[in-house]
Amino acid sequence: MLVVMQSHATEEQIREVCKRIESLGLKAHPIPGSIRTAIGITGNKDAVDLGVLESLPGVVECIPVSKPYKLVSRDAKEEDTVLRIPTPSGDVIVGGNHVALVAGPCAVETETQCLAIAERVKKSGARLFRGGAYKPRTSPYSFQGLCEDGLKILAKVRATHGFGIVTEAIDNESLDLVEEYADVIQIGARNMQNFSLLKRAGRAKKPVLLKRGMSATLDEFLMAAEYILSEGNYNVMLCERGVRTFSDFSRNTLDLAVVPAVKKRSHLPILVDPSHGTGKRHKVLPLSRAAVAVGADGLIVEVHHEPEKALSDGMQSILPEEFAALADEVRQIAAVLHRSVN
Amino acid sequence: MLVVMQSHATEEQIREVCKRIESLGLKAHPIPGSIRTAIGITGNKDAVDLGVLESLPGVVECIPVSKPYKLVSRDAKEEDTVLRIPTPSGDVIVGGNHVALVAGPCAVETETQCLAIAERVKKSGARLFRGGAYKPRTSPYSFQGLCEDGLKILAKVRATHGFGIVTEAIDNESLDLVEEYADVIQIGARNMQNFSLLKRAGRAKKPVLLKRGMSATLDEFLMAAEYILSEGNYNVMLCERGVRTFSDFSRNTLDLAVVPAVKKRSHLPILVDPSHGTGKRHKVLPLSRAAVAVGADGLIVEVHHEPEKALSDGMQSILPEEFAALADEVRQIAAVLHRSVN
Amino acid sequence: MLVVMQSHATEEQIREVCKRIESLGLKAHPIPGSIRTAIGITGNKDAVDLGVLESLPGVVECIPVSKPYKLVSRDAKEEDTVLRIPTPSGDVIVGGNHVALVAGPCAVETETQCLAIAERVKKSGARLFRGGAYKPRTSPYSFQGLCEDGLKILAKVRATHGFGIVTEAIDNESLDLVEEYADVIQIGARNMQNFSLLKRAGRAKKPVLLKRGMSATLDEFLMAAEYILSEGNYNVMLCERGVRTFSDFSRNTLDLAVVPAVKKRSHLPILVDPSHGTGKRHKVLPLSRAAVAVGADGLIVEVHHEPEKALSDGMQSILPEEFAALADEVRQIAAVLHRSVN
Amino acid sequence: MLVVMQSHATEEQIREVCKRIESLGLKAHPIPGSIRTAIGITGNKDAVDLGVLESLPGVVECIPVSKPYKLVSRDAKEEDTVLRIPTPSGDVIVGGNHVALVAGPCAVETETQCLAIAERVKKSGARLFRGGAYKPRTSPYSFQGLCEDGLKILAKVRATHGFGIVTEAIDNESLDLVEEYADVIQIGARNMQNFSLLKRAGRAKKPVLLKRGMSATLDEFLMAAEYILSEGNYNVMLCERGVRTFSDFSRNTLDLAVVPAVKKRSHLPILVDPSHGTGKRHKVLPLSRAAVAVGADGLIVEVHHEPEKALSDGMQSILPEEFAALADEVRQIAAVLHRSVN
Repeated sequence: MLVVMQSHATEEQIREVCKRIESLGLKAHPIPGSIRTAIGITGNKDAVDLGVLESLPGVVECIPVSKPYKLVSRDAKEEDTVLRIPTPSGDVIVGGNHVALVAGPCAVETETQCLAIAERVKKSGARLFRGGAYKPRTSPYSFQGLCEDGLKILAKVRATHGFGIVTEAIDNESLDLVEEYADVIQIGARNMQNFSLLKRAGRAKKPVLLKRGMSATLDEFLMAAEYILSEGNYNVMLCERGVRTFSDFSRNTLDLAVVPAVKKRSHLPILVDPSHGTGKRHKVLPLSRAAVAVGADGLIVEVHHEPEKALSDGMQSILPEEFAALADEVRQIAAVLHRSVN
Repeated sequence: MLVVMQSHATEEQIREVCKRIESLGLKAHPIPGSIRTAIGITGNKDAVDLGVLESLPGVVECIPVSKPYKLVSRDAKEEDTVLRIPTPSGDVIVGGNHVALVAGPCAVETETQCLAIAERVKKSGARLFRGGAYKPRTSPYSFQGLCEDGLKILAKVRATHGFGIVTEAIDNESLDLVEEYADVIQIGARNMQNFSLLKRAGRAKKPVLLKRGMSATLDEFLMAAEYILSEGNYNVMLCERGVRTFSDFSRNTLDLAVVPAVKKRSHLPILVDPSHGTGKRHKVLPLSRAAVAVGADGLIVEVHHEPEKALSDGMQSILPEEFAALADEVRQIAAVLHRSVN
Repeated sequence: MLVVMQSHATEEQIREVCKRIESLGLKAHPIPGSIRTAIGITGNKDAVDLGVLESLPGVVECIPVSKPYKLVSRDAKEEDTVLRIPTPSGDVIVGGNHVALVAGPCAVETETQCLAIAERVKKSGARLFRGGAYKPRTSPYSFQGLCEDGLKILAKVRATHGFGIVTEAIDNESLDLVEEYADVIQIGARNMQNFSLLKRAGRAKKPVLLKRGMSATLDEFLMAAEYILSEGNYNVMLCERGVRTFSDFSRNTLDLAVVPAVKKRSHLPILVDPSHGTGKRHKVLPLSRAAVAVGADGLIVEVHHEPEKALSDGMQSILPEEFAALADEVRQIAAVLHRSVN
Repeated sequence: MLVVMQSHATEEQIREVCKRIESLGLKAHPIPGSIRTAIGITGNKDAVDLGVLESLPGVVECIPVSKPYKLVSRDAKEEDTVLRIPTPSGDVIVGGNHVALVAGPCAVETETQCLAIAERVKKSGARLFRGGAYKPRTSPYSFQGLCEDGLKILAKVRATHGFGIVTEAIDNESLDLVEEYADVIQIGARNMQNFSLLKRAGRAKKPVLLKRGMSATLDEFLMAAEYILSEGNYNVMLCERGVRTFSDFSRNTLDLAVVPAVKKRSHLPILVDPSHGTGKRHKVLPLSRAAVAVGADGLIVEVHHEPEKALSDGMQSILPEEFAALADEVRQIAAVLHRSVN
C-alpha cells in the first residue's frame, strides 16, 4: 500500500499518517518528492483495512501494491499446474503441452440426445463431455434442467463412450451429487463469487472448472480460485467465457488477453468457452482458433445435433460436423505452439 | 420476437422461416418492407428458444420484443407496492410517500460497536438497522463475519432500540438463521443470480431486500426479483448499489437512472446504497441527496463511530454525526417530492 | 511512479532497476517489504515514459502515483472558479453558489422554432440558450445542422430575449464562427480528445463548455480541460453527459458521482446534461433533480415545443411546461444546498 | 422500426400511433399478439426521428430494426473488398487471402531510429511501415510528434526501403500533408467520430485505415466508415485496437469477435492492433497469433529497437527480433486459414 499526500500537506500531517500506520503494527516509509510526499507501507496487512487512511487530513489517495492472492500465484508455485483427470478411457491431461477439448450440449435433455452427440464429438477427438443437469436461467419460467436424472444420463455417456464428465453444480446440494457422478465440477459464471459454494468445492475430491464472472476483474477471478485452493483442492482449472461490456453485437465480449495475463500471475491452467463467449454460432469457430492461438489450455464448446430443437442456447450451439472441422483447425494451430490436442 | 430477413432473402426463405415458426406452435406475421422483410411472432414463447431461428438461411437477426417478467411488472399490478415491516417500535413503511433510512456498520463486530452506532443513528431518525453477520469477501483471508453470534448481537440491537434488522444471507443455511433473527433478509449483489438462494428467499416469511448485481441489466435485475415472487414472497424491495464500468475514480458507478426505469416497469420499491455505490466517504452525502432527489424509496448507508478501526469498508463508512447531517438534508429534499422520511 | 518487484527478485535486479531510473535523471527510493520490494521514483517525470521499466527483469508492475494535471488542479488554485458570462441581459454566473440553467432545442431548425422555445424557457428563468447549428451525427445521412444560418438564428434569439448563447463547434472552421456569434463555445463528447480543436478553443476569447467523452476516465476529462487552459483560456466549465456501459435501459449511464470527484480534484465548475445522459424524456426531470442535489453547477436541458417534429433527439426533449416544472423543483433543491438558480 | 404497445393499450391508442406513423409518410403494420400489440413500420425513415413515438400514450418502446449503413454493407457489395496499395516495391494487397503486416515505432523520433527499425522489420517481411508524426496525447505536456519533419523522415524510409507508409492525420491540416507524403492515411481511435475529418478523408486520394473508437459499437464503427465512403473514397480498411471496459489488467480489451462480426455485415477488410489493444509487451505475440487465427486481414504492430528510450508507448513496443518471431508464427497460422502473409 502506498499513501499519496497532498502537495501542500504539512510535516505534521505526514507524521500523523506515519504514526497511524505504525499504531496498526506496520512500518511506514515516507518518500519525499519534488511535488508531494508518498508513504510506502510494509508488514502484514491482511488483518487491516488500510483504505481508511484515505480519510486522514492531507491524504490524496491510497494505492494498493501487493496482490492479495497466495496459493494460486506463481510466487507460491513457479511451474505450470498440469491436471490429470481420470476417465474410463484413461487420464485426460489439462495444461502443459496439452490442449483439452470439452464438448457437448448446453443442457442434458434426453439420453438419446446425449448419446447421439457424444458419439459424434468422440470421433472428433473430444475426451471430456459437457452438459448441464442443473441450469441457472435468468427466468424462473425457463427450463431448469433434469437434475439428478440428468446426472444419470451423463453417467451413461461416461460408461458408454469413456468420456470424463464436466457438469455444473449450482448449490451445495447439487454439488454433492455432481461430485458423485461427474469427473469435473463446474462452477458457473454467476456463482464465481458464491463463496459458500467455492468453499464446498474446495473440500471436494474432484477437479473444479471455475468460470470467470461476467464482470470479474482478474484479481477477483484469481481470488475466487484461491477460495477453492485454500480449502485444500488444488485441482482447479480456470475458464474465460466472456465479460459484459457496452459492445452489443455479441452476447459477451470474449477477453482473450486474460489467458497470457493469468499465465503471468498464476500456475493454473485456463480454458476458453467460445460458445457463451460469443453467443452466436458463426463466431464459435473463429474464436476457438483464436483461443488456442492465444495459448488457452483447452476449449469448452456447445455442440448439438439438432440445435433448432435445443431447450437452451440453440443459438450458440454448433453441429457435430462443425465441431469436427473446429477440432481439425485447432489441432493445426496448437501444433504451431508446439502443443497437442487430446 | 421479430425476425429480420436479409435484403435479398428469397420468397422461399421467408416461407421457410414462417413454416418453422408455425411448427413451434406460434403464429408468423410477415411485414414486407421497402428494403427487407421482417417477421413478427405471436403466441406463447416461454417454452421455446427462438434465437435458433437466427441460423436459418436468409435471416439477419432475431430481436426480442416482449419483456420476460410477469409478477414484478406493472402489467400484473399497476399501483406501487408499499411494504409494512413490523418492528418492536411499530411498522416501518417502505414505498409510496415514505422514504426509509437504513443505517449501521458494514460488519457486525461487537455488541458495544453495534449498540453505540444504533443509539446514534436512531437519534437521526433511522428505524431500520443494517449490519453484516455473514460477509461475502473477495479474499478467503479477509474477515468473514461473526455468523450466528453476529445475528444475536443484532437481536440485542433490535430489542434495545426497537429497530427493524436488515442483514444478509449468503446461502441456504444462513438464510434459515437470518429469517429467524432479522426483519428483512438481504440478498447481496454477488448472489443476485444465485437462483437457489432466490428460490429459498421466495419461500421465506420475511421481506427481502435484493441488491442489483454488479453487471446486471435491468431485465436481469427484475427477473431475479421475479424468482422470489414466483415462489410466493411478494414483499420484495430492490436496491441499486452501483455497477461496474470503466470509470475508475469510484469503486462502482452508481446508476441512479435505474430508479425511474424500475418505477416505469415495476411496482416494487427501490432503495439506493450510496456507500457501496461510491466506495468513498466524501461521496456518500452528495449521492444520498441525489438518490432521494431521483425518487428512491430509501437509503441504506454504512455508518461507523470508529471507521478507522472497522474490520471492513472503513473507507466508505461515515460518522454518526455525518449521518445526522445526511438525514437532515435528505428530509428536506424528500419534502420537495412531497415525501417524508421515516 | 512506484515500481513493484517480484517476491523473488534478486538484489542484482533491484540494483539494475534503480540504476536505470537514475540514468533517466530521476531518483530511486527502494522500500524493502516483508514479501517484496517496491521502488519509489521522484523527480521530473514529464519527459520520460516510465512504463518501460515494467519490462526489466524482476519487475511485476509500474503504478503511477502523481496526477498529470496541473492548471485545472486544486493544487494550482484552491478556490472554486466562478465564471461570469456577459449576455445582453447582464452577466450570468456559473459556479460558487449559482446554479445555471441552459435550455433549448437539440438542433436549431428554424427561427420560429427557436424564438418560440426561447420565449417559454425564459419564463422559467433560463438565461442561457442552447441549440446546435453544427450537429455531429452518427450517420452521414442524418440532418447535419444549419451551420452559419443556424448561428444567425441564435444571434436573433440572443438579441430578442437577452440570452447568452451556448452552441457547439465541431472543427476549426466552425469554431471561428461560433466564437463570433456565441457566448459559450461547446466542445461535444465525441471531440473531447480532438486535441487540435481543444488547442484552438484554448486560444478563443469566449468561455468553453467541455463535455465528457463517452468513455473518458476522470483523468482524461481533466487533461482535456488542461489542453484548453494550457493555451491560455481559463474560462472552462465541464459537463457530465453520461458514459457508455453495459447498462441498456438508457442511452447512456449518467455518472453523477463525477461531480463530487471533480470538485475534490479541480476548481472548475461542472454542469450536467440529463437529456443526453438518459436519452429518455421521462428520466430528464428526476435526473435533473438528482444532478442539482449532488452539487452540479448547472443543467443543460433539451427543450422542444413540438418534440414529435424535432429533426433530432425528439425522444429526449421535454416540453416547455415540463421545463417550467423542472426549474421549479431544482430551485427548491438548490435551496437545500444554499444555492440559487439563475 | 418496431413500436411495442403496453399490454393494456386501448384500440384508440394503437390507432393513434398508426395515424402518427402514416402522417410521417410511412406505413404502419399492427401485429396483434396474445399479450400486447406491436406495430411494424416500413418506408423511407432516414429523414425522421422515430424515437419520438416512444412518448405517445400506450407505447412501451421503439426497437430499431434495419441497420443504418449502406455503402459499407454486404447488401451494397457482396464480395470482399481487396485493396491494392501502390508502394515503391510494388502493390501491397490487403484483404482476400492476404494478411498484411504493418510495423514500426509508435512515434517517429529520428531518421536514424526509423531507418534502423525499418531495416529490421523489412527482414521479417513487413512491407508497410507505421510511425506517428502527429501524436494525439492525453496530456498537453507529452511529446506531440515531429509533424512535417516526421513525415519527411517517413518519406526517407519509403524511398530507402520501398515501404508503403501508414501514418495518422489528426486534423484537416495534417491530413493535407499526410495525403501528400504517405500511402495510407490513418484516422485514430479518438477521431473515429470526428466527422469533419472523416469527410475530408473521404475526399482524399489515398486509402484510409480507420481505427475503432474506444467505446464505439459495431454500428457506430461501420457508420464512421460510411462517412468516408459516402464522400467517394472506397479504399477503407478498418482496425480493431481494443475497447474500454472494467477489465483492468490490460490497457484496453481487445474485442477480437468484431472481426467475424464485421465480415458478416461488411465487405471491408479489418486489421488488428495488438499493441494498443493490450498495452503490454508480453501480450503482443499471443494476441497477434489470435488475431490472425480469428481471421483478421492484417496486423499493425509497434516495434522499437530501443523501447526503453521510446518517447511514447515504450511499454507496449516489441523488439525487432520479437517481431521476427511474431511474423514467423502468424505466417504458420495464416496457412491454416489458407492465407498468406505479405
